[in-house]
Amino acid sequence: MTDAAVRENIHPRKPATNKRTPVGGAPTLAHTAEEAHEARIDIPAVTDLLLGTWGDTRRQAREMIKDPAFWRIDGQPMPEHRERVLGQLRLLVENDGSRRAFPKEYGGLENNGANLAGFMELVLADPSLQIKSGVQWGLFGSAIYQLGTKKHHDAWLRDVIELDLPGAFAMTETGHGSDVASVGTTATYDPETEEFVIHTPFRGAWKDYLGNAALHGRAATVFAQLITGGVNYGVHCFFVPIRDESGAMLPGIQSEDDGVKGGLNGIDNGRLAFDHVRIPRFNLLNRYGDVAADGTYSSEIASPGRRFFTMLGALVQGRVSLDGAATTGTALALYIALTYAGQRRQFDSGAGSDEVVILDYGKHQRRLLPLLAQNYAQFFSNDELLRKFDAVFSGRSDTPEEREDLETLAAALKPLSTWNALSTIQEAREACGGSGFLAENRMVGLHQDLDVYVTFEGDNNILLQLVGKRLLADYAKQFKGADAAKLASYAAKQTAGKVFHGAGLRRLGQAVADFGSTARSVELGLRAEQQHELLAGRVEQMISDIAARLRPASKASPAEAAAIFNANQAELIEAARAHGELLQWEAFSDGVAGIADRGTAQVLTWLRDLFGLHLIEKHLAWYIINGRLSTQRAASVTRYIDRLVARLRPHAQDLVDAYGFEPEHVRAPIASGAERERQEEARAYYAALRASGEAPVSEKSRGKK
Amino acid sequence: MTDAAVRENIHPRKPATNKRTPVGGAPTLAHTAEEAHEARIDIPAVTDLLLGTWGDTRRQAREMIKDPAFWRIDGQPMPEHRERVLGQLRLLVENDGSRRAFPKEYGGLENNGANLAGFMELVLADPSLQIKSGVQWGLFGSAIYQLGTKKHHDAWLRDVIELDLPGAFAMTETGHGSDVASVGTTATYDPETEEFVIHTPFRGAWKDYLGNAALHGRAATVFAQLITGGVNYGVHCFFVPIRDESGAMLPGIQSEDDGVKGGLNGIDNGRLAFDHVRIPRFNLLNRYGDVAADGTYSSEIASPGRRFFTMLGALVQGRVSLDGAATTGTALALYIALTYAGQRRQFDSGAGSDEVVILDYGKHQRRLLPLLAQNYAQFFSNDELLRKFDAVFSGRSDTPEEREDLETLAAALKPLSTWNALSTIQEAREACGGSGFLAENRMVGLHQDLDVYVTFEGDNNILLQLVGKRLLADYAKQFKGADAAKLASYAAKQTAGKVFHGAGLRRLGQAVADFGSTARSVELGLRAEQQHELLAGRVEQMISDIAARLRPASKASPAEAAAIFNANQAELIEAARAHGELLQWEAFSDGVAGIADRGTAQVLTWLRDLFGLHLIEKHLAWYIINGRLSTQRAASVTRYIDRLVARLRPHAQDLVDAYGFEPEHVRAPIASGAERERQEEARAYYAALRASGEAPVSEKSRGKK
Repeated sequence: MTDAAVRENIHPRKPATNKRTPVGGAPTLAHTAEEAHEARIDIPAVTDLLLGTWGDTRRQAREMIKDPAFWRIDGQPMPEHRERVLGQLRLLVENDGSRRAFPKEYGGLENNGANLAGFMELVLADPSLQIKSGVQWGLFGSAIYQLGTKKHHDAWLRDVIELDLPGAFAMTETGHGSDVASVGTTATYDPETEEFVIHTPFRGAWKDYLGNAALHGRAATVFAQLITGGVNYGVHCFFVPIRDESGAMLPGIQSEDDGVKGGLNGIDNGRLAFDHVRIPRFNLLNRYGDVAADGTYSSEIASPGRRFFTMLGALVQGRVSLDGAATTGTALALYIALTYAGQRRQFDSGAGSDEVVILDYGKHQRRLLPLLAQNYAQFFSNDELLRKFDAVFSGRSDTPEEREDLETLAAALKPLSTWNALSTIQEAREACGGSGFLAENRMVGLHQDLDVYVTFEGDNNILLQLVGKRLLADYAKQFKGADAAKLASYAAKQTAGKVFHGAGLRRLGQAVADFGSTARSVELGLRAEQQHELLAGRVEQMISDIAARLRPASKASPAEAAAIFNANQAELIEAARAHGELLQWEAFSDGVAGIADRGTAQVLTWLRDLFGLHLIEKHLAWYIINGRLSTQRAASVTRYIDRLVARLRPHAQDLVDAYGFEPEHVRAPIASGAERERQEEARAYYAALRASGEAPVSEKSRGKK
Repeated sequence: MTDAAVRENIHPRKPATNKRTPVGGAPTLAHTAEEAHEARIDIPAVTDLLLGTWGDTRRQAREMIKDPAFWRIDGQPMPEHRERVLGQLRLLVENDGSRRAFPKEYGGLENNGANLAGFMELVLADPSLQIKSGVQWGLFGSAIYQLGTKKHHDAWLRDVIELDLPGAFAMTETGHGSDVASVGTTATYDPETEEFVIHTPFRGAWKDYLGNAALHGRAATVFAQLITGGVNYGVHCFFVPIRDESGAMLPGIQSEDDGVKGGLNGIDNGRLAFDHVRIPRFNLLNRYGDVAADGTYSSEIASPGRRFFTMLGALVQGRVSLDGAATTGTALALYIALTYAGQRRQFDSGAGSDEVVILDYGKHQRRLLPLLAQNYAQFFSNDELLRKFDAVFSGRSDTPEEREDLETLAAALKPLSTWNALSTIQEAREACGGSGFLAENRMVGLHQDLDVYVTFEGDNNILLQLVGKRLLADYAKQFKGADAAKLASYAAKQTAGKVFHGAGLRRLGQAVADFGSTARSVELGLRAEQQHELLAGRVEQMISDIAARLRPASKASPAEAAAIFNANQAELIEAARAHGELLQWEAFSDGVAGIADRGTAQVLTWLRDLFGLHLIEKHLAWYIINGRLSTQRAASVTRYIDRLVARLRPHAQDLVDAYGFEPEHVRAPIASGAERERQEEARAYYAALRASGEAPVSEKSRGKK
């Protein structure tokens, strides 16, 4: 095939009379007779699907936050905003919003999945409220509950739930963020007095960025190196009172205010330092490690490494919750931008007198609809994550393996959904032009508040690196005891296509026989099964390629080994991202598979296809370079996406309506119907002017030069 | 070649002892004996290069804004911030900052290039100051100067310069942003009284988002449809007083406050509406179109379309200025993030006891250094734009063709630099983790303030679409009078590689003979000349492909033609972006070509290569699909980037120091050296503890399980 012929196939010049050409050019036109009669989606059914397993709790939370007392006030100065959010936490207590995760004997409801589902929705009211609640009950309260034992629960849990004991979660230090194992704060046991001495040995060991630390916290759960008998047993958590009833700092405790932040200014983030502060032995949260009166250390978990990760793993709910909140916040931005895009008119098309609704522009469909598909995928994957979380934390299936799977899943999904939130909210705001920049239209505030989600509760890149290491470990398990030759032979076979999860991979796209001139056949090689093969095959090959490149490290010096790993770090993170994308795609597909209604199933299948193709397009060069897609097939990916966005365009409003938001959740004037009214008023004005015969004629039509 | 062999070539497994392997693994290690002796860059010389043609003015502006009175105060409530920025404008007047663009007879300095160069630097003090200055002198003042005539200059310019007459630039309406030609506001001439009647006929025709409209403006330059004698002569600009000396609205004028925005809250953006407001005929800014006392319209420019674009073109400086300000703001974020990355330590490498400086991580180099290269490119391309602007506006080379070129250049560069600002500032903030989210470290504020740069002064996508249309028009000129067959034959020949700008394009990368096992040969096909061919070839082919697909439109109905254009809109915008990237690359290359110092030239050539390869990697799938790069060569692009970032890593601090910022410009505590002190204090603490013999031993080293 000559290059010219290849190009001709890539960009076939079809006659303009062909109904299917140009791709994307007739957005509201159905593509086949069958599709012309397609049902619309069943909106309430899709809302149920999106709200997922704990939909009832989500609806309760949404009902509660219709009260304007919960809403963010744009431009409110920081001090007032902080007090307002503290007051909102009290309202949450009154509305049972603080008790779902805790045991019944302390006033709790013992429903872990529902707890997180309810918290996620608070992002619609004010993300500061969501995160400050998370600090109080998801971090400070959880540390006491998950890392402490009955005596601690008896002592503090009821007050925590009722907000009579507001607290900070003092893990991060100025000098150490994601590397928690290296925190500098020490807790040295003194057997003479049966006390721990909590101490900040240098400036970098100040606890930092802690919600409730600058103002409202009366205690803190402090992570410190536990030292007893001259031995450092690693990081443990301690309950440390920091303020008295009047709000004054207790002796030896220093606090600084982190001041204004990029967002979340309803939270009083701050720093804490400890100058040889003594706390009773009782205050060691001793579920996973204890110190006897004489200073003897004991733990059920012998390995220091496993003990450390078990403690951190008990706090995984933060990541699960952020994944859901980011997904809901993104949905709100998409609701606003797509609703506006369906009402706003701008520029005439040259084909008539009326201006064009901006969602009818090819570029506008292209910039927003793939993000809508991605957001739908996240709803499904978050529900899966939530179910897994509930299964583990309810005790129904709480094994070390399940915990590890849960942590890996959370570490894979949270980075993707939080980054997607920022890029989608930004695109949504830009798609609304100047009106998108006004605070009243919500999107800029959402972006500012959600910004930090990508680096807190585990920096996204660090989390993905953890996932990548887990994938490498799983991969290596296949070669237990295998010698190097065996591994090399396996690596060579890889290219022939044996897959990770057992699914057989056949190489796609090299056979160009089915690549003809009709648009329909273009899609044949890009249906669900092939999307899955492409997405899964990429994860698998990236991991096996990285593993092969890391092999020399096992025989290298530590410095050389570190250098080899470092050279592969960026790609390992990329492989983990590919894994997360695969998980989202699978969850979306599972969700679609269960839909009975034909119209709904059809539209959501298109949307799932758009998501899959969007992912494949993002990494298109990789697929070609690695022989997974022929260049012809690769070129058809973009064309197929063009077809899909055009096909989905008439369903856009239905799809965002299915998020189930009510006006009290949206609150953006541009998505209220006001824009439609304005545009219609303008059109009516010009129509009346034309009808009156008094309209000024245009200079051009007057025949003057 | 089998697939396995291809893969083997893509990921060659070299022995770990090879000094050059792993790529990127030994970041500070020189790659050849020659490079080991490389000179560092000459920092002051590079500063001169970056500050460009009007470096002296930039230095003056930077000196002036060392005064804290010019600095943004984080978290300052909006009302105080607005008054503060108004006060800063008065300080600017005192410092001659307002007069550079204006004629000497009104107190000006008649130096257009210097004027914009000076304004751009204000972004370092407070972007609200930069933009409010831009509203007063760059838009309101420029409209009077550029669209008015001597009588208007005599009447108002001196007061504008001295800020005795603050004004709003009333172009955009709620219902019409980028489509200025369709504004609804009317200016109907009444020959009886020799007045224009300015009127807002419906809600969507309210002027909106106008700086100085909510509070400080005493007049506005209002764009309205000029109607006289029953004929609409299109959009013209009128001087309309809106407030009296006491600040009260004048009769018939209504104002609303746009309220809190995503950023730039030091500016009082608002809305204006006019209820049959009468202004004297004198107030028509009549440089390009006039109305006689009897209502007769006249203009030197016969074509209504050309007249409209000439008027808008007179205001191009806003875009030139934003391109520069975005570039400077981005530089500040990179300075902060890279300085921090060179001081911050996190995680030990496993190879020794010390923690690793984060800029030594492969991923960290990969995420920041290509953005540094991109920012350098922007400095060079902005200076080129500025020189062109100065040449046209000084009158030295003011022809319609030069004006059109200037407008196209501005429309191509402003979108790229403003989008790059947002993505780079965001990456920089994330690279600083939690400390990046604190307002004191500047990056979140920069992102918030610069956000709207991507949609104001011309929405970025709309501007790129204009550029795309210009490229199509230039392309079509080659076929003037050519029949369809000729065009088709040309299009077919395209694939063989005739290029736009005359440069011969040979197809690259298909010959794999030079693709051997040494890293050096990998780069042979990706040197400057080839980078240029790839970048230029992409623009040219995209445009000719789009032109071919648009051909049927000429014979189609208006509706079909519109649909065909719409189907190609997204790709046309992408082609324009490719054109802008090419221009940036060329400007960078021209800048590097003039460097005499060997070390500086070497390092900046690497940086230019990194920019070029970064662009090529972004569009890698396109290059493969279109036969411009073989898959082997494509795979080597990523490896080459890995090598380049490792090579540039030791120069990172020099390269950001060359921005020439002083502490009063940076003001971010994390880039002040405080982080280095903290990290060193912590290391010293642990070293002393180890030396004392009193350090607690680790549980593991104690030999306990």
